Amino acid sequence: MEKLENSTDCKETVSPLNNSGSVLNSTAPRHEAMGFVLVHAGAGYHSESKAKEYKHVCKRACQRAVDRLRAGGLALEAVTAALIELEDSPFTNAGTGSNLNLSGEIECDASIMDGKSLNYGAVGALSGIKNPVLVARRLLSETQKGKLSAGRIPPCFLVGKGAEQWAISHGIPACPTEKMTTKFSLSGYKRNKRKMELAEQVETKRRRHSCGHLLVTDLKSMSSPEQENDLGCLEPVGDIMVEGEENNSACLDTVGAVVVDREGNVAAAVSSGGLAMKHPGRVGQAAHYGCGCWAENARDVSLYSTAVSTSGSGEHLIRTMLARECSTSMQTENAHQALLEAMQNKFISSPFLAGEDCVLGGVIVLRCCTCGEAQRSEDIQALLVEFLWSHTTESMCVGYMSAQDSKPRTHISRLPPGAVAGQSLAIEGGVCRLGTASD
Amino acid sequence: MEKLENSTDCKETVSPLNNSGSVLNSTAPRHEAMGFVLVHAGAGYHSESKAKEYKHVCKRACQRAVDRLRAGGLALEAVTAALIELEDSPFTNAGTGSNLNLSGEIECDASIMDGKSLNYGAVGALSGIKNPVLVARRLLSETQKGKLSAGRIPPCFLVGKGAEQWAISHGIPACPTEKMTTKFSLSGYKRNKRKMELAEQVETKRRRHSCGHLLVTDLKSMSSPEQENDLGCLEPVGDIMVEGEENNSACLDTVGAVVVDREGNVAAAVSSGGLAMKHPGRVGQAAHYGCGCWAENARDVSLYSTAVSTSGSGEHLIRTMLARECSTSMQTENAHQALLEAMQNKFISSPFLAGEDCVLGGVIVLRCCTCGEAQRSEDIQALLVEFLWSHTTESMCVGYMSAQDSKPRTHISRLPPGAVAGQSLAIEGGVCRLGTASD
Repeated sequence: MEKLENSTDCKETVSPLNNSGSVLNSTAPRHEAMGFVLVHAGAGYHSESKAKEYKHVCKRACQRAVDRLRAGGLALEAVTAALIELEDSPFTNAGTGSNLNLSGEIECDASIMDGKSLNYGAVGALSGIKNPVLVARRLLSETQKGKLSAGRIPPCFLVGKGAEQWAISHGIPACPTEKMTTKFSLSGYKRNKRKMELAEQVETKRRRHSCGHLLVTDLKSMSSPEQENDLGCLEPVGDIMVEGEENNSACLDTVGAVVVDREGNVAAAVSSGGLAMKHPGRVGQAAHYGCGCWAENARDVSLYSTAVSTSGSGEHLIRTMLARECSTSMQTENAHQALLEAMQNKFISSPFLAGEDCVLGGVIVLRCCTCGEAQRSEDIQALLVEFLWSHTTESMCVGYMSAQDSKPRTHISRLPPGAVAGQSLAIEGGVCRLGTASD
Repeated sequence: MEKLENSTDCKETVSPLNNSGSVLNSTAPRHEAMGFVLVHAGAGYHSESKAKEYKHVCKRACQRAVDRLRAGGLALEAVTAALIELEDSPFTNAGTGSNLNLSGEIECDASIMDGKSLNYGAVGALSGIKNPVLVARRLLSETQKGKLSAGRIPPCFLVGKGAEQWAISHGIPACPTEKMTTKFSLSGYKRNKRKMELAEQVETKRRRHSCGHLLVTDLKSMSSPEQENDLGCLEPVGDIMVEGEENNSACLDTVGAVVVDREGNVAAAVSSGGLAMKHPGRVGQAAHYGCGCWAENARDVSLYSTAVSTSGSGEHLIRTMLARECSTSMQTENAHQALLEAMQNKFISSPFLAGEDCVLGGVIVLRCCTCGEAQRSEDIQALLVEFLWSHTTESMCVGYMSAQDSKPRTHISRLPPGAVAGQSLAIEGGVCRLGTASD
């Protein structure tokens, strides 16, 4: 497999990639194992010094998914395996290492969708479970079993303490919050708490000035040299959640994955510790149907199967229903152009975010269709997979691998120099043909 | 205002209503007060003996909304006022009188959307607050104020204990669960608990039979005469949630309202105690963006403003995103036909519910556009309002009123005799012209 397309566009200088559909790997060796996985370790800010860690996590997640595909697993199994690896990393903001909320606790959101059955499972504000995606996956499985006793419809979305109790009663082990808290998440919490306290002091002082303006000298008079640095960070919008700092993994958001299996089924999943210093009980896009992930098998041969996973500012991703919007948009011919337009029109310039000057998020997208030869013969299956990522954040870390590859590839996509995060976007992707002869 | 259209269609014998657009009330007197409200007290089963109560609740809710409109309030205020009245009724499954969950507790879902700003607020699995809609409304208001200290994005969706704490810290008083529990909800809980226990006994016995079948004599041998009746109720799908019984208000679902104000702004809201005997932490469509309610002002004069509120089986309404789908579908010329097609294609026959043989829900829909004369002169405003309701449940109770009416109208819509709930639908509606001269 070759990565065909790799270019970065900002909103102001859009130059759509050549997406003429030429496929470099048509002569790739064919194996029984077939399938493809694309993962992300968050759209946000990935410091150069930590790049190796993020890439390593993505590699392991791809490998886990491909291991499942090679063992005969389908998309849903493979996407779950990738998510577990991403959640278990102390460097990602999901599962272990999640951002702490205002009360210093971990509350996770996660969801999963199966493109074949279109079933969906989600958990929100879940504490005390190491792998939230496992609870979402189990909710999905339970809905497929049909009704509960006395005709009750099984839940597809559980939150809080009730979700934790349900998980434990379904055999998913409890995990003390302390085990999921890392030195990074704890130091991030302490730093953010100090920032908030300072910001609130500034706000209080600002209110005391009848003119409503606070001079820079006033700001400085309040702070020690150490505080000045922090205070300097307070001005940009969304500093706690988005601005990156050395050794601060807490600035990143959601992780996720999209998979297509040998049968052409797609699945998508997403998991997040949510915004740093969020209010307890806050649920972000990772638990929200249509917002955190989407997967939909093609219902006829003229359509594409699509899978999407999002990351970024939860409230923006909820109000724009970005996962589903991207999925819907991917039914036009040019995948790159479709995603570019979706990110511009349905996200950055969305009427649902009219009041926002900084719209932060990212998506990974996979679409696939059956190649011509597969339509001619049942013995030969071949899938054309197009995979893309796009983000309005400073950077986004992705990894991808097909079951035919010997090792995964990873990449940290960055906005071009001078592009403004929240107003510009980067978009990249590739094409891969999966083929297998059932000999 | 006259109700123009009133007919009931089942899925099998669709005969679209004449929706030629003739407007009977074009000569209605014009007042300063302008606006229209449509409310519902749930899609489910409304017994004849309780019909008076349901209608009375809807009347009061309409009156409250119109009071706000007449006092100069906008759509968001009016829709909140209607919801408070619906939540406060012990007969509806929202706020006071909500269904109890498996643990015998009340956990409410509610959301509200403002068509002008497209802002949205929601709470899920919320205990201890008398009017969940007030918390959703306050979340919406807070998002409109911009960022929190240190650039944090305010939440639009809070759940569980965190939501309760947030509400109290924002001045919304706590309310002990006992005060929200009624004798109806308590007796419903006891009856459902007994049904579940019996159903589980039957299931256990069924498993013991290797053939997997339980003879009717076996069933009967397990039950006392009183239990036999209960057991007889266990067979139909969804009996706990849907089947109605005398004095059992707990079988009903969600309540909601849609409003248009004098400026042509729309708003929608929804509130629910959720399914009876749901698992703690289960969140239904009433808290789910795009599923429980939707409101979207027209962005140009060629479009309609639309507002939708849904009721019914939460999981079905979530997976079909019914509120948003209905809103989107209402941009075609014939409102009745548009809603009929949406209910058939996007709900009953939705690919997202392919495995379901019984799809239960209802919607109220309002759409409006500016009349010709208003486009000619800024001094005269006139709005053409089309309002509809449709349901696949046995019945749905609605009420409606314009600010020009002296009193509200109510109606319990029922499926036609012989129509199968969950597979057929009823659809009704009317047209109303609102006009005011700013003299």
